[in-house]
Parts: sequence; structure tokens; C-alpha cells
Amino acid sequence: MKASEIAGLLESRISGNFDAWADTVDDIKGDKENSLSFISDPAYLKYLSKTNASILLVQDTIDTSEIDSNFLKKDRAYIVVKDAYRSFIKLIYKMIPDAINSSSCKITDKMISDTAKISDTAIIYKNVFIDEDVHIGKRTVLYPGVVILKNTIIGDDVVLYPNVSVYQNSKIGNRVIIGASTVIGSDGFGFIKDDDGSMLKVPHIGGVIIEDDVEVGSNTSIDRGTLGNTIIKKGAKIDNLVQIAHNCIVGENNILCGMVGLSGSTELGNNVIMGAGSGTKGHIKIGDNCIVTARTSISKDLKPGSEVKGMYPARPLAEELKVQTLVGRLPELYERLKKLEKGGKNG
Amino acid sequence: MKASEIAGLLESRISGNFDAWADTVDDIKGDKENSLSFISDPAYLKYLSKTNASILLVQDTIDTSEIDSNFLKKDRAYIVVKDAYRSFIKLIYKMIPDAINSSSCKITDKMISDTAKISDTAIIYKNVFIDEDVHIGKRTVLYPGVVILKNTIIGDDVVLYPNVSVYQNSKIGNRVIIGASTVIGSDGFGFIKDDDGSMLKVPHIGGVIIEDDVEVGSNTSIDRGTLGNTIIKKGAKIDNLVQIAHNCIVGENNILCGMVGLSGSTELGNNVIMGAGSGTKGHIKIGDNCIVTARTSISKDLKPGSEVKGMYPARPLAEELKVQTLVGRLPELYERLKKLEKGGKNG
Amino acid sequence: MKASEIAGLLESRISGNFDAWADTVDDIKGDKENSLSFISDPAYLKYLSKTNASILLVQDTIDTSEIDSNFLKKDRAYIVVKDAYRSFIKLIYKMIPDAINSSSCKITDKMISDTAKISDTAIIYKNVFIDEDVHIGKRTVLYPGVVILKNTIIGDDVVLYPNVSVYQNSKIGNRVIIGASTVIGSDGFGFIKDDDGSMLKVPHIGGVIIEDDVEVGSNTSIDRGTLGNTIIKKGAKIDNLVQIAHNCIVGENNILCGMVGLSGSTELGNNVIMGAGSGTKGHIKIGDNCIVTARTSISKDLKPGSEVKGMYPARPLAEELKVQTLVGRLPELYERLKKLEKGGKNG
Repeated sequence: MKASEIAGLLESRISGNFDAWADTVDDIKGDKENSLSFISDPAYLKYLSKTNASILLVQDTIDTSEIDSNFLKKDRAYIVVKDAYRSFIKLIYKMIPDAINSSSCKITDKMISDTAKISDTAIIYKNVFIDEDVHIGKRTVLYPGVVILKNTIIGDDVVLYPNVSVYQNSKIGNRVIIGASTVIGSDGFGFIKDDDGSMLKVPHIGGVIIEDDVEVGSNTSIDRGTLGNTIIKKGAKIDNLVQIAHNCIVGENNILCGMVGLSGSTELGNNVIMGAGSGTKGHIKIGDNCIVTARTSISKDLKPGSEVKGMYPARPLAEELKVQTLVGRLPELYERLKKLEKGGKNG
Repeated sequence: MKASEIAGLLESRISGNFDAWADTVDDIKGDKENSLSFISDPAYLKYLSKTNASILLVQDTIDTSEIDSNFLKKDRAYIVVKDAYRSFIKLIYKMIPDAINSSSCKITDKMISDTAKISDTAIIYKNVFIDEDVHIGKRTVLYPGVVILKNTIIGDDVVLYPNVSVYQNSKIGNRVIIGASTVIGSDGFGFIKDDDGSMLKVPHIGGVIIEDDVEVGSNTSIDRGTLGNTIIKKGAKIDNLVQIAHNCIVGENNILCGMVGLSGSTELGNNVIMGAGSGTKGHIKIGDNCIVTARTSISKDLKPGSEVKGMYPARPLAEELKVQTLVGRLPELYERLKKLEKGGKNG
Repeated sequence: MKASEIAGLLESRISGNFDAWADTVDDIKGDKENSLSFISDPAYLKYLSKTNASILLVQDTIDTSEIDSNFLKKDRAYIVVKDAYRSFIKLIYKMIPDAINSSSCKITDKMISDTAKISDTAIIYKNVFIDEDVHIGKRTVLYPGVVILKNTIIGDDVVLYPNVSVYQNSKIGNRVIIGASTVIGSDGFGFIKDDDGSMLKVPHIGGVIIEDDVEVGSNTSIDRGTLGNTIIKKGAKIDNLVQIAHNCIVGENNILCGMVGLSGSTELGNNVIMGAGSGTKGHIKIGDNCIVTARTSISKDLKPGSEVKGMYPARPLAEELKVQTLVGRLPELYERLKKLEKGGKNG
């Protein structure tokens, strides 16, 4: 799609080469050539010098002087709009409909596609579905009920237990073990309000990359990235019923115990331990070697080596009801303490 | 079943028309004709004037004067018993055994039943099971491993990802997307103690209704209603690993983030946002436009527009251990503060 | 494997009968004959008198005098090593590779193995996979997508809903109901650091035993035991999205509500109620008739009949932000209170 064509679809102002061309979309941090990207927050201007995007949607509140000087080389264009992110989302639907619209898919009438490449030494149980252009490595075992959607690559010595679902374009390394009913590559949870108040789905065209020697338990969900990938680095171990949202990075040799929940774009360093039921807010970074104890909620970045705890402890029922009341009255108690310190007494 | 027949099965006292007839069961708030219902709590007497129940089981602690005057019109009957709810549960097993007893089912030996009505434009992958009397709409996509049990209706432009299970009598609207391994219509979690101390399962004969434009993530469970339905209203978005118990109502355009848990009969208004890992006690109502931040536990009704938080924050381990101890000692500290206020000092 | 052969594989010192023989492995509390076991903690010396192990790996920090006197009867041997548990784990891989290595499995090319024994009155839907040497009882219903791996025994009047996965060597009693996408017998989450810093998987060769009249919801995970079994006792009811880790014991008639998480080797007595979202640390015991309210975290043993609560309550956002700050400042406030008690005032 030409820049002028894109600008024509939007209420917008275009600068640079009107013939600049994009046939895909990318994050401003990504490296895809001929891509459309966007900037809705000045904090991302720093990525301008490195991006390969050929066309940029820019929020109308952003000072474009840096874009003028920095981005408009190499025959590129930028387009100023009122809501850069929303315009970008809508353009994805126009530019790459096949990446999103399942109902346009051609389907094979075989359980194992003729275009799948499966090692002779792989063990494929009955009732496994393998879609087009899937690769399955040596000695890999796929138990019954496993479904592998198209263009997925699975390495050697992998075990996928019954009823595991792997969405399209996933990459799974060697010696990976995945427990039953676990889902790899489901859509991330992203919606934006449209003009009419309805919710517009953010399409998810990124993938999931699971590196070597990872183990994942049963009934766990690992979402695909929005534009880039969700990445589980080598040696990480993930337990049952864990939620890993879109675009998370789970570091090497991490331990994520049962029922951990990572919100979108969480980045965990290497050798991080997340205790059972702990969780993170989105877009935060947890440094190498951090230990998060069970059921702790992390809402800001943690420096490497931090050990944090935030589990509200159990107490006998009657005692706890008193404690809870007093916790709620702390602002009042604090005022009373201050008054005493100033010499005041009640009454 | 005749009222006299029902009364004969129970230690009971019957009033009204002994020949009153019921061939199904219903909640006192429901509207089914020829149904058996029950009242075990006087708070529900207010529904008497509207119910279509023809026979009512009434707890023996309830003053029946209002029932006498209000209910005994139109040839109806009521039956006073010691434990109305337990008697009602046991009668469900007698009156509609086919609704409960899976082992009485006739099964087809085909993957797609001859009695299913499937649009020509629907895309049904290999290895999809479609039971009797299921309807599948236009352009709907069912990925491998999807199982749809009988009498379920699925609209147009729906996508069910791999290994989704939909139980019998579910209704799914148009443009609904459901992630892999999600379960729609599993039995609610209900048991009552029987005389011998054993647990009697509350049968679940209600359904699940998912309206248009709903999206549900992967590995999520939405239970069927006990008598009425569990309802997900139009435009609601539900993430991965979410638990929605029996008879919940999720309002229009709600956002339920990952790992949210709704206990039975929770009612959410429209445009409610439930942050990741938040949850509700059963039988509470959350008004329109409420925002519940991540990991917050809601144990009482929230007025429309409320914004609430209750996430216990993480702290460095050593600091948190001190804080936790002092939280537990708040009742003691409060007494010490009061003593100081009265002029007292230690020692 | 002979004791001398095992000792030869390790940097070790051997005592007793060099020809002692083990062909399997067991927990020191187990009762398998001809087994290899280990002691890495003196607290386990008390099991010496009862164990049937023929060969014992012993941590080099343990005083062996009791082992000399107590264990070396009946032609047994013990082997002193630097890291008894890690050596034990590595020996499992050598001694019983077939129990662990999926890629060595012979697989049948049928959906229902010829060696499975299935009652004539069982109802097996299309698209059910039943592996070798599985037994299915009378009137049991297996819905589509169910996968039962080898050597599993399933009783009478059981219902397994769609896409349930049952791993090998599981035992399921009579009248058990299991909701869709639930997983029985996935590997426990256990890893130890190896010399090179990589994570060594603890093999899981135990099983899952589910007794009569148990009900399990949908999308729940029950892991197999490491050496012994994970046990769900008769009449226990378990809701959706529950995590039951390896070697847990869930007592009779327990109620585990939605999203409960039990860490490894938790033991629940009989008639325990765990509210929604509550959880336990590993290796703790909760006595009979305990009630744990919703979302409470249990980190130490509970005496029978205890009722405990630890749910941090929700408050209006602005109020809660104040409260949270003051909770964090409790150590400071406590110092200020103590100063006042001593007669001091600020300034």
C-alpha cells in the first residue's frame, strides 16, 4: 500500500515521499523492511533512528521536528493523524487480512497435511492434526488430540502431551516438554474503544518462540505477540495453569510455579523465580536472579537480585476480622498518633 | 408428576390442588409453565406473584399465609417440607433423569451427526465432533478437536479454536471468538449435604448463552446455570484462564482480564472492567462502569461507577516480614494507642 | 542393578552387601521391595526401620551409625555420596528409562487398543483414544476428545467430558465425574540444579489415584506423584481451574472451590473446605474439618477444625492507596508509638 493511499483512508496530513511503500506492519522497535509503523507517545521517538519502517503514523500531539530530520531519509513518509494507534490497528485489517481472518483459510481434508515435513523417527499417535507447512523434528512425540496449526516448527526430542494446541507460526525448540491441554499461541487480550463505543480487537500477528529445554505444564496458556513475539528462553520451566500474555519475555532458566500470571509485555531476566500464584502488571521488567515469593503481585520494575514478598497472611477468622478492620482504619489511627505526638489527648 | 404424587414421596403437608401438574423444574424467578419450584427463604416470597410454577415446595419455617392468598390461584399446589431445597434437588433426579444422566444417552457413530444443520459456508476442520441437533452458522470456523454437544446453536462468523468443548444446549451468537481448550457449559459447582453426610450433587440443567461479539481466551471455563442460564452479554471480552461460575451474568462490553474468577450468581453491569486475577464472592452485584483493579477481591455489591482496589503490595523480603508481623499486631497496637490517648504510659 | 554397580557410577563409599539388588526406586516411606531409595536429611532416619529398600543413597553429612545398626540387615547396602537426592534422580533415568522416556514407546495405530478391556455397557463416543491395557468399567461415558493413556483403570458409572486427558497408570474409581479439558496425571513440577547450572528434571513415576464419588470440574490439573501417588479421596469435590501438585492428598468429602492451588505434598484431612482462590505452600498438613476462606494463603500446618481467613479486602481506590502506604509504614509508626509510650514527643 502506498503512503498516499493510506493517507487517503484517514483524516490526515502526509509528509515525505507519497509513493513510500509498505506491505506489512511492525512495532517501531521491530526491524521489518517495507513496514507501516506508528508513534503515539514521544517516548518512542528514540527508536526512529533504527526503525526500518517505510511509513509511519504519528499522533497529532507529537512534535514532528525530530521525525522530519531523522526519519524522512530513504524515501520514507509519515502521516499525522488524531489517533495513531487506532488508525494503525484498522490498517492492519486492510493490509494483511489473511493473517487475521480465519474464515478465509483453505483447509486440508487430511489429519496430516501433505506439505508437513515430519521426521521418520517422530512418533505421531492417532488423532493428531498437523496442518500445512509444519515441521516436526527427530524422535518428537505427539500424543493424541494434539493440534498443530500451519507454519509451525517443532524441534527434536520434543514431547507434546494429549490435547495440546499450538497455533500457527509458532517455533518450538529441542527437548521441549509441554503438558496436556496447554495452549501455545492464542491471541493476546487487546481491544481499543472505537468511535462508536464498541470494542475493536487488536489483531495478533506475532508468534510464540519457545527455545530449547523448556518445560511447560498442563492447562497453561502462552499468548502470541501482537506484532513481535512472545519468547520463552532456553531452560525456562513453567508449571500448570500459568498465564503468559502477549509479548512477554521469560528469561533463561526461569522457574514459574503454578498459577503465575504475567501481564502483557512483562520482561523477566534470567534465573528468575516466580512463586506459585504470583503475578506481574504489564510492561514491567524483572531483573536477573530475582525471587518473587508465592502469591506476590509485582507492579513495578525489580532490580536484578531483588527478593520480594507480598502475600497477605492467613489468621484465625475472628482475629483476622479485627485486623482487617484496623488495617482499613490506619489513616484514622495515623492521625490520632500524630495528634498525640503534638501533645494532644482525646476529650 | 402430580402434586399428590410428589407429596407422597416426601414427609410433607400439601395444600391446594392435589392434581396440579409439573413436568419440569424452575427457579422461583423463572417463567416456565408446569414447573416445580421451591422457596426456602422468606426473601423469595416476593416472586410469588410472578412465578408460573404450578407446584411449590415450601420450607416448614416459612409463614404460608402469603402463599395461601397469593399462590393458590389457578389450580396450583404447595407442599410444606423440612428441607425444601434438598427435596427439590432430589425431585429433579426423579422428574427429568435424561437431563442429567449421561449414561442414558443415545450416541451417534459419526463425527458429524446427520441431524446437525451446518451452513455450506462454515469451515469445519478434520476431527471436529458435532452432536445431534446442533446448528452452525455461516462462515463459522471450527478448528480440529472442537467438540459440540447436542442442541447447541452457534451463529455466523464464529471462530472456535482447537480443542474447545461446548456442552449441550449452549447458545453462541454471531462473531464470537473462543480460544483453544476453553470450556463452555461445564456443570456448576454445587453440592448439598445429604442426611447420611454424603454430598449430593446439584444437577445443572440450565445453559450458557453467549451473545454477539464476545471474545473468550484460552483455557477459560464458563459453567452452565443450575436452573436458569449463565449469560455473557454482547461485546464482553474475557481473557485466558478465567473462571465464570454457574448463573453469572457478565454485562455488555465488560473486560475480564486473565485469571479473573467469578463465583456463582455474580452479576456484572455493563462496561465493567475486572483487572487480572480479581474475583468476586457469589451472589453479589457490580454496577455499570465499575473498575476493579488487578487481584482485588470483591465481597459485597458495588454501586455503578465504583473504582476499587485491594491488592496487597510487594515489598523487599526483610521489610515485608516486619510489616506482616505488625499488621497482625494491629489489635494490640490499637489498644496501646487508646491507652496513650487516655493519658496512660507503659510501666 | 547391583549396589556395587551403582556405587561405581558415583563418587561414593559403599557399605554392606555389594551384591544387594534394586530394580526400581522408591521413597523412603514407600514399601517397594528391591528398590533404591535415599536419605538426604536426618529427619528421615526414622523411616529406616520400616523401609523395604534394598539399597540406600545417603548424604555424606549424615551420621551413619543408625544406618549401620538398623538398615544393614537382610543383605542390604548403603552408599554414601555428596548429593544423595541428585544422585538418586540421575539413577532413576538409568534404572527405569521406559518409565520416563516417551520416545521409546511403542504405539498402536488404533484409536482403541486391542488390549484395552472395555465394558459392553460403557458408552464410548467417537474420537476417544484408549491406549494399551486400559480398563473401562460399566456404564462409564467417555465423550469425544478424551485421551486415556496406558495401564489406566477407570471404574463404573464414570463420566469423562470432552477433551479430558488421563496420563498412564492412573486409577479412577466409581461414579467419578471429570469436566472438560481437565488433566489427570501430568508431571509434577520438580527440577534440581545440576553441576553445570542447568536444570535437571525430576522424573515423575508415581501416579494419580482418584477414589469413588469424586467430582472434578473443567480445566483442572492434577499432577502425578514423583515416586508415590497423588491421591484424591472418596467424595471429594474439586471445581474448575484448580491446581493439585504432585503427591498431594485431598481428604474425603473435601470441597475445593474454583482456582484453588495446592503446592506439592500438601495433605488435607477429611471434610476440609478450601474457598475459591485459596492456596497452600508445599509439605503442609491441614487437619480434618478445617475451613479456609476464599483467597487465603496457607503457609503452615492447621490443626483440625481451624477456620482461617487472609483475604486482603477491597476499598475505594483513593482510600486504599492511603491505607497501603500506611501498611508499609507500620514499622515506622510502631517506633513512634513506642517513643510516645516512653514519654517522648516529637520536636
